[in-house]
Amino acid sequence: MSDVSIIGIGQTKVQESWDTSLRHLAWYAIEEALDDAHTNQIDAIYVGNMMAGQLSHQSHLGALVADFAGLRGAEAMTIEAADASGGAAMRQAVLAVQSGLVKTALVVGVEKMTDQTGNLVTSAMSTGLDADYEAVHGLTNTGVGALLMRRYMHQYGVGVADFAGFSVNAHANGADNPLAMFRNRLKAERFAAAPLVADPVNLFDMAPGGDGSAAVIVTRNERAMDMVPRPVRIAGSAIATDTLALHDRENLLWLKAAETSVQRALAAAGLTADDIDLFELHDSFTVMAALSLEAAGFAAKGEGWQLARDGQIHRDGRIPISTFGGLKARGNPGGATGVYQIVEVARQLRGSAGDCQIEGAKIGMAQNVGSNGASAVTHILRVNE
Amino acid sequence: MSDVSIIGIGQTKVQESWDTSLRHLAWYAIEEALDDAHTNQIDAIYVGNMMAGQLSHQSHLGALVADFAGLRGAEAMTIEAADASGGAAMRQAVLAVQSGLVKTALVVGVEKMTDQTGNLVTSAMSTGLDADYEAVHGLTNTGVGALLMRRYMHQYGVGVADFAGFSVNAHANGADNPLAMFRNRLKAERFAAAPLVADPVNLFDMAPGGDGSAAVIVTRNERAMDMVPRPVRIAGSAIATDTLALHDRENLLWLKAAETSVQRALAAAGLTADDIDLFELHDSFTVMAALSLEAAGFAAKGEGWQLARDGQIHRDGRIPISTFGGLKARGNPGGATGVYQIVEVARQLRGSAGDCQIEGAKIGMAQNVGSNGASAVTHILRVNE
Repeated sequence: MSDVSIIGIGQTKVQESWDTSLRHLAWYAIEEALDDAHTNQIDAIYVGNMMAGQLSHQSHLGALVADFAGLRGAEAMTIEAADASGGAAMRQAVLAVQSGLVKTALVVGVEKMTDQTGNLVTSAMSTGLDADYEAVHGLTNTGVGALLMRRYMHQYGVGVADFAGFSVNAHANGADNPLAMFRNRLKAERFAAAPLVADPVNLFDMAPGGDGSAAVIVTRNERAMDMVPRPVRIAGSAIATDTLALHDRENLLWLKAAETSVQRALAAAGLTADDIDLFELHDSFTVMAALSLEAAGFAAKGEGWQLARDGQIHRDGRIPISTFGGLKARGNPGGATGVYQIVEVARQLRGSAGDCQIEGAKIGMAQNVGSNGASAVTHILRVNE
Repeated sequence: MSDVSIIGIGQTKVQESWDTSLRHLAWYAIEEALDDAHTNQIDAIYVGNMMAGQLSHQSHLGALVADFAGLRGAEAMTIEAADASGGAAMRQAVLAVQSGLVKTALVVGVEKMTDQTGNLVTSAMSTGLDADYEAVHGLTNTGVGALLMRRYMHQYGVGVADFAGFSVNAHANGADNPLAMFRNRLKAERFAAAPLVADPVNLFDMAPGGDGSAAVIVTRNERAMDMVPRPVRIAGSAIATDTLALHDRENLLWLKAAETSVQRALAAAGLTADDIDLFELHDSFTVMAALSLEAAGFAAKGEGWQLARDGQIHRDGRIPISTFGGLKARGNPGGATGVYQIVEVARQLRGSAGDCQIEGAKIGMAQNVGSNGASAVTHILRVNE
């Protein structure tokens, strides 16, 4: 178990924020987290972001955020691991505080991706894939989702409709989250009839990009206990990688990096998968949710989809997922998503999840996945008792 | 003093490497560092890079490098702080190893920027500036160099020729470094007569972009002592930030972030500026070298240029700088530069600097600066005795 605890959290609604600059977007989440932690003493800032250099002509977000948030002088930098940037930034904050060389660290995930045309965003997102061997041939993130889903359907003998439960669950939870991008409930029959984006991935299968920002403040546990009433402990934290190119995988349907990072995080926390009360996973596509459940040990190979069919992923199920709507309904603001996941798990463990609350949640896991699964970051949080 | 030591270093020649892919470029430095450390057990990889997403359509370099270097599965991510990305990546490796949660970390700085047209590179470099308030008006990194130099000349009453000593020294040292981009010696009279790039910055005043990669492997000091004959200790390590926009500075001619990061690093190391035997500074422009010397405490305000005039920056001078040619002659491969600086200081302290050797060097400092000085990373290395 690490000696690091969360003392502050903040997040913006995921939406199209054309009138909000990147720095303002980051600030809104930071302001909330600073207020929540009752501090403005921040020693280091880790910004999770993937695409600002390409979409907003702005890199160097560490200095930008430190300056604009009134934290000028603080140590600051950007952490990037494609869609797993937010989770990776969280990991760096944990290492920094654990080292004893940084007292209080702020993690902020921020991404602004809706005020550019679709091609630019698709192209920027695709830089997370293997540029020289896959993206160069036109493969996109959505294309990867389609390839994996098709293969899953072929290998395990399931149909498109069998994935519906993931999106239905995500929208049901998102409906209760005022900060979610989509709050409409979704019927299973609408899922199967949705227009195709990249066969067999349809419009209700894939998570929408959005603009958003989420922030987390961490410090050493003994300080945290003095500072706030309900610090949430980082029990385990791990990152693992896999082949960047999909064609190099031994098994296309096995998220090796996800499995490895879960095992490392569980070992660090001294826990097993059975101890986890909720799981914020990376449901960028329904097939990714199924694969994450399998890699994390909640389902056997090829059976992750059954947890959706059987309602085991619902709030009152065996392993609740996407409890605030997940990437699918809360929205997927690229490099910020991993920080949203941490904020959401922390809210569940604080008992401040509002209508999205999982009753009695004590231990939660968040998993942020980069592009096709080449990076995976897993954090295990627990109530500090 | 940190408990972290360097056990392996590697670097490629800085040059135009049009026939070398980004992953190969990274690998060549990594291979050398792994061989040097006699290990292939790497737990975490920190990639310093600024522009691959924009110039090579490739982000997610952590997974790319881990995969291609035969280190699949390792924790990995990209660290970005504009031109200070390499130094920031080094800092993260120090924190990771110091935390005890990462045993051995690899830092690799890599940048490929010569096989794109000039406008694209200038635009990518400029994302390190304030996009909304300065770069949007056409300000570039070279423009910043020109503004700062003009202001320095005005305020301190010096002329263009007074900066010549920095470039003459850099080229003299680069001439002895087989891995330098430019190995020609430069005469002071040629400097003053060089064609202008952005008045008053001329062709021999600014550092050239290049393709390159450098790598450093670190582990805890007690392990390092068992593993290699001459581990180099990270005595101090710090990052600081300043306003991102130049127009927000209280004093345009004071690199506040550089000053702060030097003070933090010296305090951590328990040293003063007088203890430093050599200083690899960020001489992207001659005025930046002068300002860095002043911010670091080696010269009074407005007198940094005199250290060049008086030869105090030469290899046998009071405070040798750019001992392998610096950014000016070794070349400036963007996000990789900060790792080159660490490799070069380590070589000096190992006594393996060849013709560039500073005799009897025991303590060296490296400072990597992001864009206009909004980020500064300082590392102090010392012989492990």
